[in-house]
Amino acid sequence: MQLLKEKILKYGRVLPNRILKVDSFLNHQIDVSLLNEMGKEFKNIFGSENVTKILTVEASGIGIACIAAQYFNVPVLFAKKHAAGNLDKETYESEVYSYTRGKNYTIRVSKNYLSSEDRVLIIDDFLAKGKALLGLGDIVAKAGAHLVGAGIVIEKGFQEGGKLVRESGINLHSLAIIKSMDKGYVEFEE
Amino acid sequence: MQLLKEKILKYGRVLPNRILKVDSFLNHQIDVSLLNEMGKEFKNIFGSENVTKILTVEASGIGIACIAAQYFNVPVLFAKKHAAGNLDKETYESEVYSYTRGKNYTIRVSKNYLSSEDRVLIIDDFLAKGKALLGLGDIVAKAGAHLVGAGIVIEKGFQEGGKLVRESGINLHSLAIIKSMDKGYVEFEE
Repeated sequence: MQLLKEKILKYGRVLPNRILKVDSFLNHQIDVSLLNEMGKEFKNIFGSENVTKILTVEASGIGIACIAAQYFNVPVLFAKKHAAGNLDKETYESEVYSYTRGKNYTIRVSKNYLSSEDRVLIIDDFLAKGKALLGLGDIVAKAGAHLVGAGIVIEKGFQEGGKLVRESGINLHSLAIIKSMDKGYVEFEE
Repeated sequence: MQLLKEKILKYGRVLPNRILKVDSFLNHQIDVSLLNEMGKEFKNIFGSENVTKILTVEASGIGIACIAAQYFNVPVLFAKKHAAGNLDKETYESEVYSYTRGKNYTIRVSKNYLSSEDRVLIIDDFLAKGKALLGLGDIVAKAGAHLVGAGIVIEKGFQEGGKLVRESGINLHSLAIIKSMDKGYVEFEE
């Protein structure tokens, strides 16, 4: 997606350890008009799939999922990373390893909001090693729902997540795939 | 806001310890068309304030803030509750006590995205004891920005937060104010 790539080139910052900082428009400050263009693009890609629910994980996926959901006319469901007192007791869960935090955490979705009737589109901001996305896919499978695909904003193509996810059979589309950041700037895959 | 009150009466569940569970449409599963009506209402209330930025706190405020931001044509900024490696070193911070979790946590906003030029509208899902909202107001003050007001979805009017926030001079508007849940169902203030 050209507009997104231009934003990344203009405002993204390449930090050590292959960190791409896009917090001026994506995951701290949020450019909502860009999110709208991304939502339209996800609709172009997955619009014929009869999506009934968009699934994401807190926190930075929520805004993207909500804006995109307007084009699908479906509710959003976000998996929780923290066991809050007000979450239902009956949940679908999956263990996810976070490389950013260096530890496992559990993502949870109430059984009330995901069923075998659902056709689920997963949306998230980043795909690197793929653990969060595979965990969300695991939750969809546990619910007996149909996973129609996954829409990712930025895929780090030089890490193994995209390959793992595609090999698992998930219909994955990333709006921007980064080939390399090793020169200190971002190069995209064509 | 009538539509919101109807949703609360129809789908909200009153649990012990004055917990109102609205996770079927607000803070786990999200009814995005309801969020759009709420966004329009916030625009009606604060539309003349020349808002330049909407500030919220992760996680459940993000979707509401992003949908509302479309009516103001401004970016969203969400305060982070967790010190992530990819947050800027230079941040405005505030300590917030969480009654849900029974401990203090620090909310942070990068200094890059809030300045004395900004006219900030705070948006959040719940107001109970007011700690999170006052913490966000503290961050706005530290940035030297102008706080035009706060838009809350559900205020627990039987707790002290609303009084504290209004007495602090913040222009607070809540779309639904709950007078009592002690009878096992929700009664609203007029």
